[in-house]
Amino acid sequence: MPERRHITGFSNPLVKFLRSLRDKKYRKRERRFLAEGLRLLTDARESGIVPEILVMATGREAHPLLDSLERAVIAAGGDVVEMDLEILAKVTGKDNPQAVAGVFTEFDTSLSALDRQAAPIWLVAQALRDPGNLGTMLRTGDAVGAGGLILLDDCADPFSVEAVRASMGAIFTQKLALARWDEFIGWLRAGDGQLVAASLRDPLDYRQAPYAAPCFLMVGNESQGLPEEYEAACDLRVTIPMLGRADSLNASVAGAVLAYEALAHLR
Amino acid sequence: MPERRHITGFSNPLVKFLRSLRDKKYRKRERRFLAEGLRLLTDARESGIVPEILVMATGREAHPLLDSLERAVIAAGGDVVEMDLEILAKVTGKDNPQAVAGVFTEFDTSLSALDRQAAPIWLVAQALRDPGNLGTMLRTGDAVGAGGLILLDDCADPFSVEAVRASMGAIFTQKLALARWDEFIGWLRAGDGQLVAASLRDPLDYRQAPYAAPCFLMVGNESQGLPEEYEAACDLRVTIPMLGRADSLNASVAGAVLAYEALAHLR
Repeated sequence: MPERRHITGFSNPLVKFLRSLRDKKYRKRERRFLAEGLRLLTDARESGIVPEILVMATGREAHPLLDSLERAVIAAGGDVVEMDLEILAKVTGKDNPQAVAGVFTEFDTSLSALDRQAAPIWLVAQALRDPGNLGTMLRTGDAVGAGGLILLDDCADPFSVEAVRASMGAIFTQKLALARWDEFIGWLRAGDGQLVAASLRDPLDYRQAPYAAPCFLMVGNESQGLPEEYEAACDLRVTIPMLGRADSLNASVAGAVLAYEALAHLR
Repeated sequence: MPERRHITGFSNPLVKFLRSLRDKKYRKRERRFLAEGLRLLTDARESGIVPEILVMATGREAHPLLDSLERAVIAAGGDVVEMDLEILAKVTGKDNPQAVAGVFTEFDTSLSALDRQAAPIWLVAQALRDPGNLGTMLRTGDAVGAGGLILLDDCADPFSVEAVRASMGAIFTQKLALARWDEFIGWLRAGDGQLVAASLRDPLDYRQAPYAAPCFLMVGNESQGLPEEYEAACDLRVTIPMLGRADSLNASVAGAVLAYEALAHLR
């Protein structure tokens, strides 16, 4: 195995580059993002995706998965770099950083890259602002065997460290598409697809609804919910019981409750 | 209405006191916590709980709900204080603070204060570390008509600003109890109660399980899950399908999927 580069200073240009990837503006310009943790990076590799740069902490514990990750990165022509754990902490912005992180190229996020027939369920989120909610929806999508997550209008960046972290690796297994509403609804109606939203407007019980694949389950912004126009364009508006004082659930929770219900009907 | 106190400086002792409530150590010592937003404070009032101190931003928009909140606080012998929005931002630690916040007395969080027959569903979380997940579980509990949330072992503080915010007011409608595992299982077995956990160990489909009220739905720590011993002590171990690469859901999502399933059986 070739000699690894060792980085010892905070002012190293690579460290600056890595840190800049925590800023959305730089991520977009570089079309790169950061993911941390051996498990996430192993999930990525098992999905056929290896980082361009693999960053490891000096003094980390040896691990066979890390060895095979390193070999995969080198085989793909990537870079392997070592740095002190405290520098890695600055890079990932976490007090207790994982001992390994990777730089990945952003994926294609166009609707046209999606094969809607590839999965019975797709998740759709509109103006979702919380990166934790976004990552959680990716994670739920993975669990229900969804094809991916379609982000409408101005959502949090799915390539932020926080969203990638909350996805627990699902960023590498779920397809991602970013689109405006008009573009999405045009694409959806040009083929098969049932659009479903949780709504307070219709009395159709979410457990009795006639879900049909490919089923697109849509949740709205954390504080505003879905625009009325978007709900009106849905094929189904289903009601999730709300027995308490509140009239809504956390967006990623609502998405998960719908997704597991649809899964039970469509499996 | 009596003259309100106006606070103009960051160094005012009350401002210092309010800011200290963002720190768990001070919250515990003072047995007080902060909640922000007209909607949350109105939810609290409708549940019969008014803040000891009501803090309002100068220059806020008038609102009938705010007027009645102010009257309720004064009628209860509480304090009403005005301060600049930028000081309020320092108090709540939010860039865009809501125009109103309140200081509340912590509730009784002993198991013995719970009436287990008061609701068909109770949520239980073990070593839940993320205040957002904790607040989200309270919010889900409210939605499914649960009695409350029981926090086992070392959980995040339910009275942190972040947890209160994520609860969307459910901190005022759900009962809360804090206990160690031994204390909890002793209390549970001294009366009626079915203890249920999502588990990978048993093949019982979560949709086919014989849920019975009062049903205690337990989720584990975000990264470790439940200790084996806790799972073994459950009456039911149910399986939620995992069709992807991952073998787990976000803790608050798992709790919600279980809670909505149990609700459908127990309603």
